[in-house]
Amino acid sequence: MRIRVLKNITSANDAIAAQNKDLLDSHHIIAINLMSSPGAGKTSVILQTIQCLRNKLRFAVIEGDIASKIDADKIDKQGIPVVQINTGGGCSLEAHMITSALKKLPLKNIDLLFIENVGNLVCPAGFALGEHKRVVISSIAEGDDKPIKYPIMFSLADAVVINKIDLLPLQEFDLVGFRKKITDLNPKTTIFEVSCKTGEGIHTWCSWVLGQVQNRSKI
Amino acid sequence: MRIRVLKNITSANDAIAAQNKDLLDSHHIIAINLMSSPGAGKTSVILQTIQCLRNKLRFAVIEGDIASKIDADKIDKQGIPVVQINTGGGCSLEAHMITSALKKLPLKNIDLLFIENVGNLVCPAGFALGEHKRVVISSIAEGDDKPIKYPIMFSLADAVVINKIDLLPLQEFDLVGFRKKITDLNPKTTIFEVSCKTGEGIHTWCSWVLGQVQNRSKI
Repeated sequence: MRIRVLKNITSANDAIAAQNKDLLDSHHIIAINLMSSPGAGKTSVILQTIQCLRNKLRFAVIEGDIASKIDADKIDKQGIPVVQINTGGGCSLEAHMITSALKKLPLKNIDLLFIENVGNLVCPAGFALGEHKRVVISSIAEGDDKPIKYPIMFSLADAVVINKIDLLPLQEFDLVGFRKKITDLNPKTTIFEVSCKTGEGIHTWCSWVLGQVQNRSKI
Repeated sequence: MRIRVLKNITSANDAIAAQNKDLLDSHHIIAINLMSSPGAGKTSVILQTIQCLRNKLRFAVIEGDIASKIDADKIDKQGIPVVQINTGGGCSLEAHMITSALKKLPLKNIDLLFIENVGNLVCPAGFALGEHKRVVISSIAEGDDKPIKYPIMFSLADAVVINKIDLLPLQEFDLVGFRKKITDLNPKTTIFEVSCKTGEGIHTWCSWVLGQVQNRSKI
């Protein structure tokens, strides 16, 4: 009984996600779903990307959190259109939440939409939102075993951003082994090493983001 | 419909959790449910506690993960009885999983049972397991806004362990503000500051753990 109910929810979610994607496509908007553990740096990556590409792309952001509007306030300060979704206790954004949020955004004036999911390495893997790309952010501070412990999330990622690379000298973290664990699960994914604190690697990541928008007719 | 189904699941879980607690009580075992984001240091805290108190207490551990037995192997190397639970995609341990695991542990020879939950700051708050104490571990690297973003988890905690305190000089982290956010949500919780890397604060935490077992008749 329980499995059937959850399957129904997933099917319904997928149908709404497909509608979201159609709406985004009709406006030539590329949407990137950012997923990570709490505190891995999703908002920091968004802020760095805005700083890097704001002269080339028109951004918007949907922020997902259990509670608070801390992250939306940070985006709003940059003058970027943003919608905060609070899930209450929900452990992931779901497609219908994105449908509601899209109604509040100026779709005619957006090239790239970041969707910052709830901080969670499990649930968001189960809910398509209508995004074009899924990006997992993983922090050096979390340790190098995360792809083994949370394989579904890493298997689905179009790109993995390894953040807080500045902490590498201070941590027991096998970077080569970490990259291998990811590519063993997901050979096609693109891996970036960045530090939102020092700016290291941000330019390479931003080039990839820009490429997604420039190639949008092919997606 | 969906809400009703989830409520039924929760009620069933609570009933099984109560049975688990009865079984633990009949063997005078104190169970501590450790919850955190991925990579905050649950296993490291367990290993440090074992090192600190293994001459005073008989330990056992239940390890919860989506996949892998990495953490169970670390505990096993210490000669401590351990059971690994893999949830597949499930974002929390649930009471029935603990029931199964308890059957595999030498209950007559345990004083303290650590239950390391799935790395997740959301789902585990919704599933009682039969534990006597709930402890949230939060890493300095995750940032100081977590109690605001994940209030349910912090509201339920009997204790909060702030781990990786050695990273404090390297992070923008308002420790006083962080403590205030926790106590605003949960005035009765006990807060510890530790570094599993340097050992700072571990003794104070271990004294609290020992106290839980020594006072078990009062719980």
